Amino acid sequence: MSFERALLRDVAPYMPGEQPTGDIIKLNTNENPYPPSPRVMEAIASLSAQDVSRYPNAVSQRLREVAAERYGFPGPEWVFAGNGMDEVLAMTLRTFVDPGDTVLSTYPTYSLYEVLVKLHGAEWLTADLTDDYQLPEGFADNKARLCFLTRPNAPSGVAVPREVVEQVCETFDGLVFIDEAYADFANDSCIDFPHRYPNVIIGRTFSKSFSLAGLRLGLAFANPEIIESFMKTKDSYNINAVTQAAGIAALEDYAHMETNVARIKATRRRLTEGLRELGFAVPDSESNYIFASREGARGIFKRLKERGIFVRYFHERGLDVGLRISVGADGEIDAFFAALEEIIGDSKFGRE
Amino acid sequence: MSFERALLRDVAPYMPGEQPTGDIIKLNTNENPYPPSPRVMEAIASLSAQDVSRYPNAVSQRLREVAAERYGFPGPEWVFAGNGMDEVLAMTLRTFVDPGDTVLSTYPTYSLYEVLVKLHGAEWLTADLTDDYQLPEGFADNKARLCFLTRPNAPSGVAVPREVVEQVCETFDGLVFIDEAYADFANDSCIDFPHRYPNVIIGRTFSKSFSLAGLRLGLAFANPEIIESFMKTKDSYNINAVTQAAGIAALEDYAHMETNVARIKATRRRLTEGLRELGFAVPDSESNYIFASREGARGIFKRLKERGIFVRYFHERGLDVGLRISVGADGEIDAFFAALEEIIGDSKFGRE
Repeated sequence: MSFERALLRDVAPYMPGEQPTGDIIKLNTNENPYPPSPRVMEAIASLSAQDVSRYPNAVSQRLREVAAERYGFPGPEWVFAGNGMDEVLAMTLRTFVDPGDTVLSTYPTYSLYEVLVKLHGAEWLTADLTDDYQLPEGFADNKARLCFLTRPNAPSGVAVPREVVEQVCETFDGLVFIDEAYADFANDSCIDFPHRYPNVIIGRTFSKSFSLAGLRLGLAFANPEIIESFMKTKDSYNINAVTQAAGIAALEDYAHMETNVARIKATRRRLTEGLRELGFAVPDSESNYIFASREGARGIFKRLKERGIFVRYFHERGLDVGLRISVGADGEIDAFFAALEEIIGDSKFGRE
Repeated sequence: MSFERALLRDVAPYMPGEQPTGDIIKLNTNENPYPPSPRVMEAIASLSAQDVSRYPNAVSQRLREVAAERYGFPGPEWVFAGNGMDEVLAMTLRTFVDPGDTVLSTYPTYSLYEVLVKLHGAEWLTADLTDDYQLPEGFADNKARLCFLTRPNAPSGVAVPREVVEQVCETFDGLVFIDEAYADFANDSCIDFPHRYPNVIIGRTFSKSFSLAGLRLGLAFANPEIIESFMKTKDSYNINAVTQAAGIAALEDYAHMETNVARIKATRRRLTEGLRELGFAVPDSESNYIFASREGARGIFKRLKERGIFVRYFHERGLDVGLRISVGADGEIDAFFAALEEIIGDSKFGRE
């Protein structure tokens, strides 16, 4: 006898990238190779026994105040905090989408969206990006309750122009969730859109640029009416005391994040150019990963893994021609290139 | 223009107890007055920068292994970990209840259930407990997809006999979620039920007996088929690295928790007897709070608050005659009684 809901039976769970341990080079889940701000580590270590034994602030008040100020919003009523961006995404469905409604996105995009939409009992509609990862003509004419737009896109790293996103926000009937998980690595962002568009939610995560993947913190910025709706559906105490303190410390040491981002962008340039020299097609990425296509991508993926170097390979249509490679530390990228040149030089390469 | 789902418009959000700060005595949210194990604090302080910057173990593997061993289950496939018991409760609905289905519980019970059920678009059905907080005749004959049973009950603190719960598990058609948030303060528990009943989920929290309310950790114990369903609906990385480490440390220093529980039970006895002497009706509580009824409860609540002593007052039917008082530290209970005797001695008492 099974108790689970019938709709779960057809949902393939989201597959996060592997989290192997040991002496390996991990370029598969877009973590930040550099440590978080020392002020974050201090905030964690200085937590008191009472901070641990008492319930945390139910609405992450101080964190939202600091975030509002940092990102140019009038106050905390423009900010919602989630247990990682994943929770923000799932809650966006629970708060604004009824089962049976349609949710629009692009293909490709962050693959978690589809899982969440199906778990919610909603319909999943996608429009293919063009060959250079731009929005197709008439994208916003699709009818749906919600649209997920990743900017920069996953896994290509390409950011569609702000003007194009603006046009979507103006013409699309429903809510537009702009997933800016990687925006700190991009040339610009849409963080100012909620001031002008009542139908826009901007999603941010602390997992990438701020090096806090282990702590789970995501933010949503939107007009106060939307934030108030989130407050109705959230778990009573969704962000624990440690994460609230760490998030505040991270925002207060913003320069630390910017320094790490600058290093990652420099390494991204080197990674992109090196791969192009080896015959890979690599679109200009505005993210902390690049997508590199070349014949025999799957074989290269496997051979890298044998050498303890983990990148991401997707079996999906159009993505099975390439590798998504996180921009690691410089030494990691050196080791990656050394292994890659060996593999490509190997005469057996590409046969399977 | 509103974007939120129509069903949210009629849901009154859950109201957690106040979290005032400053020089007050807090007996209103059932936190543990004693600090967590020093090993928990060590585990938090010794988190490395890499623990923070990398994604945590997606399935809380080690935590679930330690919990399975501690509570007598064959392995981690019998255990699910949630971001606080609140997440476990919400996920139970998302995983096992379709919108439109009925969810059964008692009245009174933990008031969050009703909010979660309505947010999920399900129907909320309750059967009144008897005057001595026992399950009414024929309770399990109600048809529903899921039943929430709090044992010990909130807010009375009374635990219905195990045999009665067994009978519910045997005869009820749907899933039975036994919420054992406070079971460590009780004389016995139903933690062994999942071995015998495929339709039982036992919920536990670290917020009470383990003094970890600030970290958000709840567990569910059930047969592996049920746990697997939870795994499909959970957020990819729902428990952060700090909470996983702290939960393991807490379970490994189980004796610390037991010592604190013994102290709280001793204070509970004193609190119960003292209140009875002052004319309150207090059922025997197996929890870390007691429910004390007496004429003029609301006035007493207000006067205690004026004196900086926070207890909980519920406006709901049948509960507006009493106060729910968390079992604090001995000094806090001394101060509570001193204030209470003053209030009750005051001639103006009970007039409003």
